[in-house]
Amino acid sequence: MFEQKIELKGHIVDSYILPQIMDTIMDLGGNYVFEQFDIGRTKDEPSYCRMRLNAGTQAALDETLRLVQRLGATILEDRDCEFKPAPRNGVFPLDFYSTTNLQTFVRAQGKWFPVDKTEMDCGIILRNADGKLNAMCIPVTHIKKGEMVAVGHTGIRLEPMERDRKREVFAFMGSSVSTERPKELAIAGLVNEMREAKARNRKILLVGGPAIAHTGAAKYLSKIIEMGYVDVLFAGNALATHDIETALYGTSLGISLNTGLNEEEGHQHHIRAINTIRFYGSIQAAVDAGVLESGVMYTLVKKNIPFVLCGSIRDDGPLPEVITDVLEGQDAMRAHIGDVDIAIMISTMLHSIAVGNLLPARVRTVCVDINPSVVTKLADRGSHQTLGIVTDVESFLRELQLQLAATENN
Amino acid sequence: MFEQKIELKGHIVDSYILPQIMDTIMDLGGNYVFEQFDIGRTKDEPSYCRMRLNAGTQAALDETLRLVQRLGATILEDRDCEFKPAPRNGVFPLDFYSTTNLQTFVRAQGKWFPVDKTEMDCGIILRNADGKLNAMCIPVTHIKKGEMVAVGHTGIRLEPMERDRKREVFAFMGSSVSTERPKELAIAGLVNEMREAKARNRKILLVGGPAIAHTGAAKYLSKIIEMGYVDVLFAGNALATHDIETALYGTSLGISLNTGLNEEEGHQHHIRAINTIRFYGSIQAAVDAGVLESGVMYTLVKKNIPFVLCGSIRDDGPLPEVITDVLEGQDAMRAHIGDVDIAIMISTMLHSIAVGNLLPARVRTVCVDINPSVVTKLADRGSHQTLGIVTDVESFLRELQLQLAATENN
Amino acid sequence: MFEQKIELKGHIVDSYILPQIMDTIMDLGGNYVFEQFDIGRTKDEPSYCRMRLNAGTQAALDETLRLVQRLGATILEDRDCEFKPAPRNGVFPLDFYSTTNLQTFVRAQGKWFPVDKTEMDCGIILRNADGKLNAMCIPVTHIKKGEMVAVGHTGIRLEPMERDRKREVFAFMGSSVSTERPKELAIAGLVNEMREAKARNRKILLVGGPAIAHTGAAKYLSKIIEMGYVDVLFAGNALATHDIETALYGTSLGISLNTGLNEEEGHQHHIRAINTIRFYGSIQAAVDAGVLESGVMYTLVKKNIPFVLCGSIRDDGPLPEVITDVLEGQDAMRAHIGDVDIAIMISTMLHSIAVGNLLPARVRTVCVDINPSVVTKLADRGSHQTLGIVTDVESFLRELQLQLAATENN
Amino acid sequence: MFEQKIELKGHIVDSYILPQIMDTIMDLGGNYVFEQFDIGRTKDEPSYCRMRLNAGTQAALDETLRLVQRLGATILEDRDCEFKPAPRNGVFPLDFYSTTNLQTFVRAQGKWFPVDKTEMDCGIILRNADGKLNAMCIPVTHIKKGEMVAVGHTGIRLEPMERDRKREVFAFMGSSVSTERPKELAIAGLVNEMREAKARNRKILLVGGPAIAHTGAAKYLSKIIEMGYVDVLFAGNALATHDIETALYGTSLGISLNTGLNEEEGHQHHIRAINTIRFYGSIQAAVDAGVLESGVMYTLVKKNIPFVLCGSIRDDGPLPEVITDVLEGQDAMRAHIGDVDIAIMISTMLHSIAVGNLLPARVRTVCVDINPSVVTKLADRGSHQTLGIVTDVESFLRELQLQLAATENN
Repeated sequence: MFEQKIELKGHIVDSYILPQIMDTIMDLGGNYVFEQFDIGRTKDEPSYCRMRLNAGTQAALDETLRLVQRLGATILEDRDCEFKPAPRNGVFPLDFYSTTNLQTFVRAQGKWFPVDKTEMDCGIILRNADGKLNAMCIPVTHIKKGEMVAVGHTGIRLEPMERDRKREVFAFMGSSVSTERPKELAIAGLVNEMREAKARNRKILLVGGPAIAHTGAAKYLSKIIEMGYVDVLFAGNALATHDIETALYGTSLGISLNTGLNEEEGHQHHIRAINTIRFYGSIQAAVDAGVLESGVMYTLVKKNIPFVLCGSIRDDGPLPEVITDVLEGQDAMRAHIGDVDIAIMISTMLHSIAVGNLLPARVRTVCVDINPSVVTKLADRGSHQTLGIVTDVESFLRELQLQLAATENN
Repeated sequence: MFEQKIELKGHIVDSYILPQIMDTIMDLGGNYVFEQFDIGRTKDEPSYCRMRLNAGTQAALDETLRLVQRLGATILEDRDCEFKPAPRNGVFPLDFYSTTNLQTFVRAQGKWFPVDKTEMDCGIILRNADGKLNAMCIPVTHIKKGEMVAVGHTGIRLEPMERDRKREVFAFMGSSVSTERPKELAIAGLVNEMREAKARNRKILLVGGPAIAHTGAAKYLSKIIEMGYVDVLFAGNALATHDIETALYGTSLGISLNTGLNEEEGHQHHIRAINTIRFYGSIQAAVDAGVLESGVMYTLVKKNIPFVLCGSIRDDGPLPEVITDVLEGQDAMRAHIGDVDIAIMISTMLHSIAVGNLLPARVRTVCVDINPSVVTKLADRGSHQTLGIVTDVESFLRELQLQLAATENN
Repeated sequence: MFEQKIELKGHIVDSYILPQIMDTIMDLGGNYVFEQFDIGRTKDEPSYCRMRLNAGTQAALDETLRLVQRLGATILEDRDCEFKPAPRNGVFPLDFYSTTNLQTFVRAQGKWFPVDKTEMDCGIILRNADGKLNAMCIPVTHIKKGEMVAVGHTGIRLEPMERDRKREVFAFMGSSVSTERPKELAIAGLVNEMREAKARNRKILLVGGPAIAHTGAAKYLSKIIEMGYVDVLFAGNALATHDIETALYGTSLGISLNTGLNEEEGHQHHIRAINTIRFYGSIQAAVDAGVLESGVMYTLVKKNIPFVLCGSIRDDGPLPEVITDVLEGQDAMRAHIGDVDIAIMISTMLHSIAVGNLLPARVRTVCVDINPSVVTKLADRGSHQTLGIVTDVESFLRELQLQLAATENN
Repeated sequence: MFEQKIELKGHIVDSYILPQIMDTIMDLGGNYVFEQFDIGRTKDEPSYCRMRLNAGTQAALDETLRLVQRLGATILEDRDCEFKPAPRNGVFPLDFYSTTNLQTFVRAQGKWFPVDKTEMDCGIILRNADGKLNAMCIPVTHIKKGEMVAVGHTGIRLEPMERDRKREVFAFMGSSVSTERPKELAIAGLVNEMREAKARNRKILLVGGPAIAHTGAAKYLSKIIEMGYVDVLFAGNALATHDIETALYGTSLGISLNTGLNEEEGHQHHIRAINTIRFYGSIQAAVDAGVLESGVMYTLVKKNIPFVLCGSIRDDGPLPEVITDVLEGQDAMRAHIGDVDIAIMISTMLHSIAVGNLLPARVRTVCVDINPSVVTKLADRGSHQTLGIVTDVESFLRELQLQLAATENN
């Protein structure tokens, strides 16, 4: 029988942390004994427990520990985290510790260090900067041979996301992505969150797909940007292209946004729009030349709001600003997410998952799509931080813009 | 080699009638020879063709003829339709002619008679009323032993639906149910159609599911009813129940439409709402008693607009007005569809398919659902008469109400 | 401040009962104080807690109590349940207690009585049979004026569903309905459950939709029935009709199951199949006459296995056995569910929801559909008893039949 | 009134070419007059027509001509195509002719030249190679300043796809992507097509997503590859990673393919698998080292079958073989599609659309996905060349492998 003690603190019962830990131990065939259990007597008091868990083999115990650690349990050992050198550039030691998106701490020289730049599926390195130790997350492609990388799972501690103590939009609607719920209320909740984020000087990130242009919703998004509620936009070639197509030709994928008719073969307009911007050299240059005079990209350029366009293999063209190397694209996005508090992801599974991979768990994420499967997939990030809304993107952006405008005037 | 001559008239090329007939003959392994082909030289001139089609067996020829007849071909024979007596109540002769929803004619005594009450999957009977022969559609459950029912397929002719000669909302959007299309334009087209129907004194039928209540859209539908744009409503127990639940408790399936929160266990409110109406004896009685004071059902009662509530096996309760026998329910709906020109079907697959089965092909049908599969299934009725819109029911009804109100004021 | 004591026993932490209760109290704006909390020290020891909960108003307290009671909390009061007479036939007292599908107990004359025939959204009556009190669930349509019906929520206790103490198929896959999971394993787990149910002499219920016939899977289901793994079948007119259409014409909705081609206009065959059975008077009579010689309905008749066919308003025909009154249909199904341990629901949302409404929570339910939304909707019954499988019905039934046959031979 | 003559030849009625042309003219507000119409009297005789079409403005006429040209009409003018120099590297002349995926001809020096490397949304250049003129498609990113690019739409002719004269799998099932169809027949048809392609020495391309690994279907695909039915594979980082994860750890995304249980935190295994391959330097090297011993990638390496792995911004790692620049990825795929006759696309919208953009219309495409929307989107390429199958990828590949093996043994 292989045993280990762990401890847990905080709102561990109603945040579903302790039940999940008990489930995990049993699912892996193990057992547990509570040595101490002090329930928080009221909703504001934290709980505490210390339990001994066991498993039939050392391997099963290791797996169990790795999992309960990810759920927030601290392994009660007085040992530092172990570090090993990367065997070559772009390669971690084979037994590296793979990160979650939760706030993480590593123990070195008997002290706990917070890990910077939390991101899933990365490694942890400890750098000595000016005599001070500094722990940080690093993607595998960035590691240099010889850098010291955390391995195993001792000396590592995670801070789980707890249920908020008050009623709030992300808590109550998070798990619900039904098509059959009133959407106005969810949008009203989001409007509050956005206004609070602005008041705290925190950033709002918008991640968008081409349906924004196809459904004629680009005009609503342009107004939201103009009102200052988007601090950075991530998208692909498609949203930018069809937004510019609309500005140049009045169509999106060749369908007129005024009449709904196919004006002409769709591919014509969008590839022509791309060629035109390529002719001028950049979106900025096309705006300066007076060729591009409306739309989402125009508004971003005019308001000097940064955007990152990442390429994909299904792109036509692409536009000059599109970053065609996907690793460079990821790094370009990483550079912008430090201060983001809210990420609004609209009608793009590819970009939403990509951004979700990069974001720390603390960022509140709103995912809007007409396809419930997409929302389910994206909303399922194991925290109380996600709001999924199954609805039409056109009506979502129209309503969001209206409600933001209404609160402005109060 | 088994042969038969057929002929076709009208806009048979661009309405896809002739190509489908050629496809059908080839799919069934046969061949054809055009004996005459006079193309309509301009878009307003009809075309005419006469062709000889053949097949390897009499059975294959019969099947081919049955199919091309359904597509609008006339079988060139100088014979009357054959009629046989129904062998018992509720049973057709085994070789009965099964109807389509297209306008149909039967030949008797050397003359062609139009068939009344066109409906799919029924039989045709010829009744002698005051010395005049009268052909009509009849469902199998209504047939009486001994009545004369059309059999085989000679002496029967159908009038296919042709493409309209002008651009219009049902023609251009019909085949397209994409989530990625601008919805405002489709709604604007529908508003025009609804206003024209009112101007012609024709009826608008609304078929609705409970998502109208769940999403908080009942208030928009109530206004549309109040404005006179619904002449009859078909629904099930669910829409009426949750609409009344909202009126009595402010919730739908227990979810508050003001806060989006679960106020209380959902089933409580809806079963209590049903019990309350049962206590008063009817929806009308509850309105008269001042208990029910708002919502879709309230507005219908107040405006004296007829509704049919048909039961299903998943109903709780049900409400007193619900017709629990499904055959009686079908008959109750049949009684209302005579003058209907437009049927708007919202978020209910069961009722929409049921109503679709009863409607003649000429009725223009708009199907709105957030699930593209439902729209595809319902919009696929083989005619230019159907408009499918994949969107959120809340935003659809809000926008429809706004646009109807806007045109009212012009 | 309005207060009440409640208590909880059992595996209340890892079965997510206590966390949900804490959530509920907080969601409704209340607070709680644990007076006693004895955690089960190991996985087999039950836990116990007694807590005082409070709310700002009596109404909020009442709602909170109703909800936590549904989650399994016992309200600590030494009071019997209150009963009031039904005001008329088919109507409960306005403040009746509305049931869940969990095992329920009512307190009368100082003793707790188990409630028979547990079903959601019903009332509870107490009958005196031969001097013995007998509590049972009753649907609103069955209540007679003057019968005593439980009201309020004191003197009522529920037994929540607890997580199983061992790994098992329903526990681990229940929440997961992903299309991207290996299906063979889920089917292997189901095969085990089905064999165990047979060994215990408990019933297996199959609820099926017409896709079983359309996809050519009726032959697999027929074999499963022949092997004795279906004790009762619930379906609608459509499954039976298309199954019989296949037996008579080799098609389903007119599409040949041998060639995949449209043999002839679909509606022809299915309405002819219905008419033929109507001609013979019943499915049984058609089997006896040697007209119906294969398929699901044939096998059921031959093996003397009961089936219930419930009508819906979208039915053509229908077949003679179809119960056209929906309340009679519900009662016919209720008569068969007493000994059911496993319900397998395949490709029918209408019938699956209807049956789900009637089943007690203890029945293990497997829901199979290619549409993830349907599976999500049906699998979401708040217990550890449901397994959702998103897959093709043809491949599901083929694999299930193969695995059942394989285990037979061991 | 602006006029132009066009002509059409071939099976233009039942291939829906002429009806679409008539629709297009009317949709754009124009009219037409048939000057000559010679119907093919039997199914094997081609038809011919010459028509005069007109429009209200020159712009409307130009748009109409562009569209009907894409549908296969030849514009009756005795003029060569016009060519203009590219204004700079990577930029077409602003009025360039944008290609379709149909076989195209350009007229130069009074003669018609076939255009090589047909691909959508590209330009056409005319190169002089060894004194011979050579027309070819070129993507915008590849164009060099000064190269002569086709502009406008005169002197360009397309060869439309015609309906096959015999019954066949792609013709009859093409438009049907229903979940409610028998799949075995479609797979049998595909097996025939694959065997015929092999007999003709033409290539089969497989495009796959990670669901192949997640559902445990990699073992079936590996066998299909081993039997020689895949000539080249296109995928992303995800399929290769999870396939290798399965080989190394027995899991896919951390879920055991033997037990269906979460063995351990999913992200651990897949990122470890990537790191391991990165450690060895390549998939080939890991196979050589005896580390990778089974699965799809292993089989490809062992059988020396080429594969292209294209990166996307949602990739973790990625594996060393992944091409991280999307334009390089497109070029790598272009290099392999010359001899491809059949493209089988399984469970990946991103890669399927990307490959679909690159393929000429003549390539028969089979698209398999459990999500009907994906199949609809991909199958909608306007030709008789596409077969959409909505089903579970596991059961599709199992059945395909079984049927291929069965025909091998005959």
